[in-house]
Amino acid sequence: MSLKLTILGCHSATPRSFAHPSAQFLEINSRHFLIDCGEGTQTQLRKYKIKFSKIKHIFISHLHGDHFFGLIGLISTFGLLNRQTELHIFAPKGLKEIIILQLKLTNTWIKYPLEFHEITSDKSELIFEDKKVEVYTIPLDHRNYANGFLFKEKLKERNLNIENIKKYPEIEICDYHNLKKGKDFVSSTGKIIKNTILTKDPPLPIQYAYCSDTAYFPEIIPRIKDIDLLYHESTFLEDRVELAETTKHSTAKQAAEIAKQAEVKKLLLGHYSSRYKNENLFLDEAKPIFKNTELSFAGKVIEI
Amino acid sequence: MSLKLTILGCHSATPRSFAHPSAQFLEINSRHFLIDCGEGTQTQLRKYKIKFSKIKHIFISHLHGDHFFGLIGLISTFGLLNRQTELHIFAPKGLKEIIILQLKLTNTWIKYPLEFHEITSDKSELIFEDKKVEVYTIPLDHRNYANGFLFKEKLKERNLNIENIKKYPEIEICDYHNLKKGKDFVSSTGKIIKNTILTKDPPLPIQYAYCSDTAYFPEIIPRIKDIDLLYHESTFLEDRVELAETTKHSTAKQAAEIAKQAEVKKLLLGHYSSRYKNENLFLDEAKPIFKNTELSFAGKVIEI
Repeated sequence: MSLKLTILGCHSATPRSFAHPSAQFLEINSRHFLIDCGEGTQTQLRKYKIKFSKIKHIFISHLHGDHFFGLIGLISTFGLLNRQTELHIFAPKGLKEIIILQLKLTNTWIKYPLEFHEITSDKSELIFEDKKVEVYTIPLDHRNYANGFLFKEKLKERNLNIENIKKYPEIEICDYHNLKKGKDFVSSTGKIIKNTILTKDPPLPIQYAYCSDTAYFPEIIPRIKDIDLLYHESTFLEDRVELAETTKHSTAKQAAEIAKQAEVKKLLLGHYSSRYKNENLFLDEAKPIFKNTELSFAGKVIEI
Repeated sequence: MSLKLTILGCHSATPRSFAHPSAQFLEINSRHFLIDCGEGTQTQLRKYKIKFSKIKHIFISHLHGDHFFGLIGLISTFGLLNRQTELHIFAPKGLKEIIILQLKLTNTWIKYPLEFHEITSDKSELIFEDKKVEVYTIPLDHRNYANGFLFKEKLKERNLNIENIKKYPEIEICDYHNLKKGKDFVSSTGKIIKNTILTKDPPLPIQYAYCSDTAYFPEIIPRIKDIDLLYHESTFLEDRVELAETTKHSTAKQAAEIAKQAEVKKLLLGHYSSRYKNENLFLDEAKPIFKNTELSFAGKVIEI
């Protein structure tokens, strides 16, 4: 299992006991990320038994309340729990000011380093990288400056072809490290055995994109081409396509069209307007266009 | 029924699905007040079917997150619901800056007047008054500047003593208004009938005090003397009386001592630390000192 995505909330605008605002917890290639943090996210994290200590990087798509009003509470709670580990927050410019002002006025002295990485560009950027994962922004089209995020595993080491390796007794275990890195084997007599004989291709890197909130915006397609999983907002159905346009949101049909054109493997819908009582209508609208569509709901887990 | 208090949340510090931070909805003499507004308060209001339109005045005790992190979400939701009615917020200086900054950075244009009444005094003040109710601050002893609130019905009109009135045929229905106001009856011939013969005393004005957060602070006693209902924080039990002192909170025993000395009619405990799994322990500690003690819990309603 390379990816595990837990939906903590996937409704738009105003929270209710059955409708939690945007938040997701992503595990990809053994890295953990919190994506958006609407009001009540810390309660949802506890409900789904996600350890607070796993959260070291938080990505905030944009400064609308249903995507970040839960952040100050989470940061404060980390402080109350005597967190020591640093916390990195990737968010549009402005969020730092909001958080720092509240920490100051509440006299909250957190003991852990809190580092803000302000996102300001209108172009896609690499904003996080370590040896396991890369995260890129996906500029979106919304009323407020907004970015989606592309989470991408780094290419893993090549897999050893043990059957073939055994045909060459001169290859020792200490050579495996170089083989996994893709190097050819060179014996002490100068004999060369091609790496492609001794190893197999590693699995393709898993890629997940979170795109919320946005109008129908085909410019994102090249950034999400062929990815494994796309979360694309679907605030409305086609019955309110004009409202979607004026508020810069998408319909379920539009989300499906993006998924189809980008040839992603799976589409996950969310950010439903609470005016719709039956969420299956979103599925009914999207599936004829893009078959492998699923609904998100609080508590849903997707593993790849 | 003159008073109806609904507890929306009564736990300290970090919210969980079974532990909601401070918030109460008070109806007193047909006026409605929201007292404190921890994260998730708007969800709790919906859960207990309290109409948002009833909320016109919000009182915030102090600037610790578990008492106000839900306010920006509620204000934003009012905006989304196209509220037009003005909203008054009584809170320590600083909250206005926090709210205005967030409204600005989220590009939220609310259409209703939002008026802040900043509380800065260390002395008790009358901060709200209309023809039905008065609200006074009760300065508390906490780490951050904090006030409790005393909600006090105004003295009602005198009740007509119809039996006695009927003995005087010269008294007409149009005279009742003056009688209720406490005036003597003067007939056209100049005969005076004392008001006390024609009316009975109105019920004593109901008084409710909310005191959270505070250390044991007997200075509040004169302000809450003989009141009908006291909510007094009891974050800890006596096993952690020293922690209560350093963090400027109270134990259940201390809350009961305040209630006893102030001779209030009923004590309501709350603001429990979530380290205690069994809240009955708070009751066990308080009741030997002050018998008429009750526990608060989310959803509890007290009517007087």
